[in-house]
Amino acid sequence: MTESAAHLRIIEETPAYWRAVFDNPPLSIMGARMFEGLQDLLARMDASPNLRVVVFESSNPEFYLAHFDLDDIAGSLGLMKTTGPSGLPILMDTFVRLTKSPVVSIAKIRGRARGVGSEFVLACDMRFASRENTALAQVEVGSGVHPGGGGTERLPALVGRGRALEIIVGSSYVNRALPDSELDGFVDALARRIASFDRRPIEAAKNLVNQVSLPSADRLLDGSNSFLTSVTWPETQRRFQTLFERGLNKPGDTENRFSELLGTLLDN
Amino acid sequence: MTESAAHLRIIEETPAYWRAVFDNPPLSIMGARMFEGLQDLLARMDASPNLRVVVFESSNPEFYLAHFDLDDIAGSLGLMKTTGPSGLPILMDTFVRLTKSPVVSIAKIRGRARGVGSEFVLACDMRFASRENTALAQVEVGSGVHPGGGGTERLPALVGRGRALEIIVGSSYVNRALPDSELDGFVDALARRIASFDRRPIEAAKNLVNQVSLPSADRLLDGSNSFLTSVTWPETQRRFQTLFERGLNKPGDTENRFSELLGTLLDN
Amino acid sequence: MTESAAHLRIIEETPAYWRAVFDNPPLSIMGARMFEGLQDLLARMDASPNLRVVVFESSNPEFYLAHFDLDDIAGSLGLMKTTGPSGLPILMDTFVRLTKSPVVSIAKIRGRARGVGSEFVLACDMRFASRENTALAQVEVGSGVHPGGGGTERLPALVGRGRALEIIVGSSYVNRALPDSELDGFVDALARRIASFDRRPIEAAKNLVNQVSLPSADRLLDGSNSFLTSVTWPETQRRFQTLFERGLNKPGDTENRFSELLGTLLDN
Repeated sequence: MTESAAHLRIIEETPAYWRAVFDNPPLSIMGARMFEGLQDLLARMDASPNLRVVVFESSNPEFYLAHFDLDDIAGSLGLMKTTGPSGLPILMDTFVRLTKSPVVSIAKIRGRARGVGSEFVLACDMRFASRENTALAQVEVGSGVHPGGGGTERLPALVGRGRALEIIVGSSYVNRALPDSELDGFVDALARRIASFDRRPIEAAKNLVNQVSLPSADRLLDGSNSFLTSVTWPETQRRFQTLFERGLNKPGDTENRFSELLGTLLDN
Repeated sequence: MTESAAHLRIIEETPAYWRAVFDNPPLSIMGARMFEGLQDLLARMDASPNLRVVVFESSNPEFYLAHFDLDDIAGSLGLMKTTGPSGLPILMDTFVRLTKSPVVSIAKIRGRARGVGSEFVLACDMRFASRENTALAQVEVGSGVHPGGGGTERLPALVGRGRALEIIVGSSYVNRALPDSELDGFVDALARRIASFDRRPIEAAKNLVNQVSLPSADRLLDGSNSFLTSVTWPETQRRFQTLFERGLNKPGDTENRFSELLGTLLDN
Repeated sequence: MTESAAHLRIIEETPAYWRAVFDNPPLSIMGARMFEGLQDLLARMDASPNLRVVVFESSNPEFYLAHFDLDDIAGSLGLMKTTGPSGLPILMDTFVRLTKSPVVSIAKIRGRARGVGSEFVLACDMRFASRENTALAQVEVGSGVHPGGGGTERLPALVGRGRALEIIVGSSYVNRALPDSELDGFVDALARRIASFDRRPIEAAKNLVNQVSLPSADRLLDGSNSFLTSVTWPETQRRFQTLFERGLNKPGDTENRFSELLGTLLDN
């Protein structure tokens, strides 16, 4: 067993179904040797026509993939500077080839998956996590940088732009089910957290998310111009007049239940 | 304090964290002066390099932003005709600059946010709402018009095309968790509600949503042609034959549990 | 009543609201005659300026639409080879015209909707289903083929790429709420199920989903290069140094609570 292979053990359950186990104690930190293991695995996957699915798990139930290896910063950043077989930088090459492989990849998550570890999970075809024992986070913005391994590009498609920005510029995964009594405290804590981070990584992260999640100005102008036309339709004028007769713009039942009342607006 | 500023009060919690409070009693109606306040705020945000986050809230716990100011229809529609600093119409300029700002915007919602008020909320980077006391609605189609401030463009990315159309052509936010006994009554009420609205705003709204949410005919044709090829593969012919031997197309266990049985279809 | 019309009964509740009832006992199988009925309905919809909404339901509460008619394979595949009024193959023509119609379509679902039946449901503007009595599934990959009627193109926008692949390459709709004690068994069963399917339909299905759900290499490279720049910022170097002083990369509190600690990282 080579040293790099030691960070990622492959178990062939059947010729069609393999398990890949991250095994880098004590914290399952993701560095250059882990990516060597993933590159070796991708080469084996390409050469295995009977393979259908690979499940990725961790030997440490508390840490799935802790984060990028910042002890070996040169080695880690090198993964984003030197290219792999596809011509993309090795880190991105690993994730993109996993995504485009005919073999299905499943992340089975227990413990913490943070930073590039969360981005690995996002590059898998599916994700299943322990409800009691999982913590996913993009910790980059709070560390002064921003996600660079696909997090800003993949999260908006998965959870929507708003939730993606909450995760990325808040540097945490949080729960949004909010009873009225907790709303003020929650939003104030999140705002103070974001306010404590550096401005440049917030700006860069938000800009990258915008690139893959915003409608174009042309689409927005179509909507705006079509609205201006609709105001001039005679049937619309009749509805507006009825709304004012019923009390629009004055405190009372019509303002309180505007949308409910629309279903019977023109009745008798 | 200027008159316009009175509709939007700014509270600087810290240099990095501001609160912006909508304050236009009695109903928090969103008109030309409210947008002046927002334009002033955007200029101050651009000139504040220490700022990271702005939280938008309302002084009225029952009304976050009631809807467009239809008392001053000329002033309100003017917001969609005269351009702001970005070259886009002022209403859209306000929403797009908020979205593209390096500063993070958070809507903290209590009470009703309807029509352009809902579209303001959609233009913020994140939304958090009181579970007990929030009503979001796009009331336009039932009023004879359709959303024109980005609702038709932003909702599909946030909640999917189907839910976006339900909100927009139904002119309401509704709950879709449906016990079997409630399904008929719910769908009939929704269908009758939509049937009571004018046909032109339904058509315009659906068309705008389609522009930002449908796959192209080319993508659909790729899928169709690839399917036709797959039917001719020998391993596929073997599966089809087995399915028929097991009772496909006849009432019974194979039809009742088709998808479950696929996992062991070729076993002995 | 023509023979084709017998497979799809139209009930005009009002001029603005129609119900369309699939009526093909015993299994509500979707074949050439059902599509003739849908084509007739689309022609009537186009000629009915007062119509606003059509609700699609089944006369069989156990089977909404069982699947493609594989007894009449020539007739069924013909729906993907001969073109309809829009110039697209009839099956796709039916679904695309339904989607682009100014009339709103609602699927009211009880019982099984599988394969092309699930794709019909995805082509409707909205879907409402009985919580106790609904089973939606794309059974194609487990049958040796892959979805060809828009499932691979429409599902990613509706439920995200990961969930879409789970449904499509798993050939089933499953529940993902996973207590820790069930995680291993669930993922192993899903992996063995996928592993039992043919490799070519898995590859084709995944490739089609990728076409409509992946970010481009250009967008990914923007993120990667911006990250490399951010590492060199002086404020970022200060955060990295502080993280190491606090115990980064060593087992302990900083590793366990990395994302929580970021909110107060620079507080003396």
